[in-house]
Amino acid sequence: MDKERLIFVTNDDGFSSKGFAAAVELARGFGRVIAVAPEKMQSGMSHAITIYNPLFARKVREEDGVEVYSLSGTPVDCVKFAFDYLLSGRHVDLVISGINHGTNSAVSVLYSGTMGAAMEASFYNVPAIGLSITDHSEDADFDAAVEFGRQIVGSVLGSDSLPESLCLNVNVPSIPRERILGMRVCRQTQGYWRERFFRNEDPNGREYFWMTGRFENQEPDASESDEWALANGYVAVVPVQVDMTAYGHMRRLGEILDIF
Amino acid sequence: MDKERLIFVTNDDGFSSKGFAAAVELARGFGRVIAVAPEKMQSGMSHAITIYNPLFARKVREEDGVEVYSLSGTPVDCVKFAFDYLLSGRHVDLVISGINHGTNSAVSVLYSGTMGAAMEASFYNVPAIGLSITDHSEDADFDAAVEFGRQIVGSVLGSDSLPESLCLNVNVPSIPRERILGMRVCRQTQGYWRERFFRNEDPNGREYFWMTGRFENQEPDASESDEWALANGYVAVVPVQVDMTAYGHMRRLGEILDIF
Repeated sequence: MDKERLIFVTNDDGFSSKGFAAAVELARGFGRVIAVAPEKMQSGMSHAITIYNPLFARKVREEDGVEVYSLSGTPVDCVKFAFDYLLSGRHVDLVISGINHGTNSAVSVLYSGTMGAAMEASFYNVPAIGLSITDHSEDADFDAAVEFGRQIVGSVLGSDSLPESLCLNVNVPSIPRERILGMRVCRQTQGYWRERFFRNEDPNGREYFWMTGRFENQEPDASESDEWALANGYVAVVPVQVDMTAYGHMRRLGEILDIF
Repeated sequence: MDKERLIFVTNDDGFSSKGFAAAVELARGFGRVIAVAPEKMQSGMSHAITIYNPLFARKVREEDGVEVYSLSGTPVDCVKFAFDYLLSGRHVDLVISGINHGTNSAVSVLYSGTMGAAMEASFYNVPAIGLSITDHSEDADFDAAVEFGRQIVGSVLGSDSLPESLCLNVNVPSIPRERILGMRVCRQTQGYWRERFFRNEDPNGREYFWMTGRFENQEPDASESDEWALANGYVAVVPVQVDMTAYGHMRRLGEILDIF
């Protein structure tokens, strides 16, 4: 164990989740660990930041080589608080976000607080790995995710020619370990979530709704997509970037707006 | 005024903001308007969704050709509630999100609730326009944004060959109208936000932080970028898409992970 290295860990399920504990243990095998995780569950918080409220931080635990803090904000707040305050000026070797209870494949990369945090960390030029499993239950089994996560972290830390702002969206299928066939580098699957709204009334007759969705895969047969990989027994690894420009639409848009 | 058309309006500053009222008025010039906006300010909420809480909706006003609802959730919740419940099965011609108090240029597209909502609407294959001005004050002047917004909406509604899932990030500089030189189709500027955390203590001695940031432009001279356009007197129009795959990193990643 190289005590010189500094690994930062965060997540979106909160500092007390099982997946977070698994990520801290994973990171511990590679160096000193400093972790900041949300005080409360922040699932589905995407890249949200706290602009109009103060943030409260507290140290949750400190023991040999591990310091854990909780923050009253979002996953991205946790990363900003770490890199621009708590660790300001210190070199961080790697960031692990997760391990998330639930998949962040396809367009879920955009809704995910886990991936929001991983992307934000990559903005500080630190390689960042978002790690998720397809099982979203509280007591999910993280063993396979830890095993593949360890392999990926080792490869990234061992490489001397990483792309700049490397950010990985790693999703591990929750199937028996012996049925997992290995890892695949994938692209984000095309498709969208469609919701159902369950209407109900509270005891005072006030109407309310629960939102619940399902993913509509527009290309279930695309073997280079992350959904295909997961459905076929592979760990899906998607490199992520944040230039959202639709380059392919620029010329046509200029014509439509009559400004070329 | 074509009463056959249906325009959906949302925003992230809440149903009572001045910019939202301006967007509803803008939309009203093009058809029937149905609007769902957050009950409370949701600035910086990105693509966040409400998973573990119920949502409360109420009709705020209804008058000739305009219905406005508020929802207790995020901007993306508002879009999902509209398309999968309130308007389910009805054809929507266009979505306007905004007009936002504050710019959503460069990587702010990712933090922005206004753009989160616009992107989500484009997932339903409805052309979506996020409209923002650089002035974030409550009583900002929206006249120029309405003028250019009207021009863009007219062009988009008038086109018979729009790209699929068209989503535009439109930012209007808050300078005197006569100094605005026109519109430019741009790409997202490269650069990141860096934060300062102002530490303080509440009356009970509990430590808290206010986060505040500034944008670090990595390419201030790039004349094809949206920041350059805004700084040089242009309305910046960036077409947006949500495939976040870093295609350029896939091969190298396969080598690093030793899986090609």
